[in-house]
Amino acid sequence: MGRKTIDFPVWLDDRVQHIEAVLDQLLPQETVVPESLHEAMRYAVLGGGKRVRAALVYAAGEAALQSGTPASAQEIGLDHAAAAVELIHAYSLIHDDLPCMDDDTLRRGRPTVHVQFNEAAAMLAGDALQPLAFELLGMMPIAPALIVQATQLMARSAGSLGMVGGQAIDCDSVGVALSKEQLQQMHSMKTGAMLEASVLLGGIVAGAGSAVRQGLEDYAAAIGLAFQVVDDILDVTADTATLGKTAGKDAAGNKPTYVSIMGLDGSRELLHALHAQAHAALLPLGPAGTHLGGIADYIVGRDR
Amino acid sequence: MGRKTIDFPVWLDDRVQHIEAVLDQLLPQETVVPESLHEAMRYAVLGGGKRVRAALVYAAGEAALQSGTPASAQEIGLDHAAAAVELIHAYSLIHDDLPCMDDDTLRRGRPTVHVQFNEAAAMLAGDALQPLAFELLGMMPIAPALIVQATQLMARSAGSLGMVGGQAIDCDSVGVALSKEQLQQMHSMKTGAMLEASVLLGGIVAGAGSAVRQGLEDYAAAIGLAFQVVDDILDVTADTATLGKTAGKDAAGNKPTYVSIMGLDGSRELLHALHAQAHAALLPLGPAGTHLGGIADYIVGRDR
Repeated sequence: MGRKTIDFPVWLDDRVQHIEAVLDQLLPQETVVPESLHEAMRYAVLGGGKRVRAALVYAAGEAALQSGTPASAQEIGLDHAAAAVELIHAYSLIHDDLPCMDDDTLRRGRPTVHVQFNEAAAMLAGDALQPLAFELLGMMPIAPALIVQATQLMARSAGSLGMVGGQAIDCDSVGVALSKEQLQQMHSMKTGAMLEASVLLGGIVAGAGSAVRQGLEDYAAAIGLAFQVVDDILDVTADTATLGKTAGKDAAGNKPTYVSIMGLDGSRELLHALHAQAHAALLPLGPAGTHLGGIADYIVGRDR
Repeated sequence: MGRKTIDFPVWLDDRVQHIEAVLDQLLPQETVVPESLHEAMRYAVLGGGKRVRAALVYAAGEAALQSGTPASAQEIGLDHAAAAVELIHAYSLIHDDLPCMDDDTLRRGRPTVHVQFNEAAAMLAGDALQPLAFELLGMMPIAPALIVQATQLMARSAGSLGMVGGQAIDCDSVGVALSKEQLQQMHSMKTGAMLEASVLLGGIVAGAGSAVRQGLEDYAAAIGLAFQVVDDILDVTADTATLGKTAGKDAAGNKPTYVSIMGLDGSRELLHALHAQAHAALLPLGPAGTHLGGIADYIVGRDR
């Protein structure tokens, strides 16, 4: 455990810097027509973000490989998969921030895309990031059958039974009393689906067998929910400057949250249980799961 | 030619009815959670539309097969590809109609999605249709390497260097004087890319060789542009009731069109040249290209 606490921040910082460079390279340059669209896409994706999803892809890829340095093809494959999940995440934030949705003006401490550009540009930037994510998966230098698995997983996780579906339930729930079960379903779709997809994509790219995939799935389910519980806790305990986005937004908008349903103490108890579940799921993976464990600790302990 | 003029409308009508049934089956039912999202997605996709893109997939698939009835796997593959291009088209219409874009209230003679539901629902329905299109391609019962080709083609055609890129240029061009070349680039991205993708997808699913693919590409380039020229002509010559959408919209919005740049007569001359190019590209395909020829005639002759 001593080794992990020293190494994990170094590993995470390295991965965050690495995915930033990968995204910078894979996104069309601002000099490519249409320049304004590419400028908005790059503004939305680059220069910020916790990169939790990319880190999950890399950590799961390492865990599934069960060895030291991944082969070159797998490295490129993980880069593309990590970039793809970050593009889907960025597009969802752009659209969520639009006036017809959350109407947010601040994101990662900067003006949101529709404030910096305009609403049409923001919608189109999001619309263009989504197919780019699928294009990046298609460019992975791995077996076509694995690419198809990856594409299917991301399509389902991003669609009406995943991320967008959860967002739709969230929209329909403003001012509505949800049960804990309904809230969990909403979040497992809205946030959990793409977090879980990130973990499983790492496993697919690394050619994980079914036993490892099961461990990854169990781990992913736990941290997917934990992530949202932390978000809800931070919405009431953190301030806007620390968060880099408007604090108290969900409470003010009468949106159901874990805190509004279970209270702050109940939410913290749930969080600790999910944290333990995540670590338990990693036990069969042995030392290869160290960085996944580090990400679980990071998610639970984050303050923004 | 006598045979074609009798048979083509019957074939087209059959394909339009068929893709309607396929879409009805492949879209999530309104009883599936989240019901409101699936209702909006089905409203946007079903019950209308010329289904030109689906027809192109089927006709190109037939042309590439060079034989009678396609095998079952290829039939299912063509159904999925045809449905996928119609979903991408439907999503683009939903987003184009939003207030921050064209702000249109009428589409296919019915209220647009954001009028029938609300803006957030319309944006999310579009956002969810896009990954569903990729999911359908991934479900095609053909070789994984061909699925990856299809996915890549659709991702590029729908993205910032294709459909969405053309839309962005269109948005940036309101009130700006475009040259004929700039207008063609915009339209070849905005409308042409997905029409061309529809043709090429049919070829990929049917396992077309490089010679046939070249013929399909040349045909697709010509009808892609012809389609937009007709749209621009109809915008000034047809009335709203016939179009099923607001006529005169582009002229009133000071948007550059073929008619505004080349005049009505010049636009009609260009249209006839593109029509001839499309038929010339089909000559090497022989009788197998009959329905593609029929679609070219249909696109040039349509009144809505």
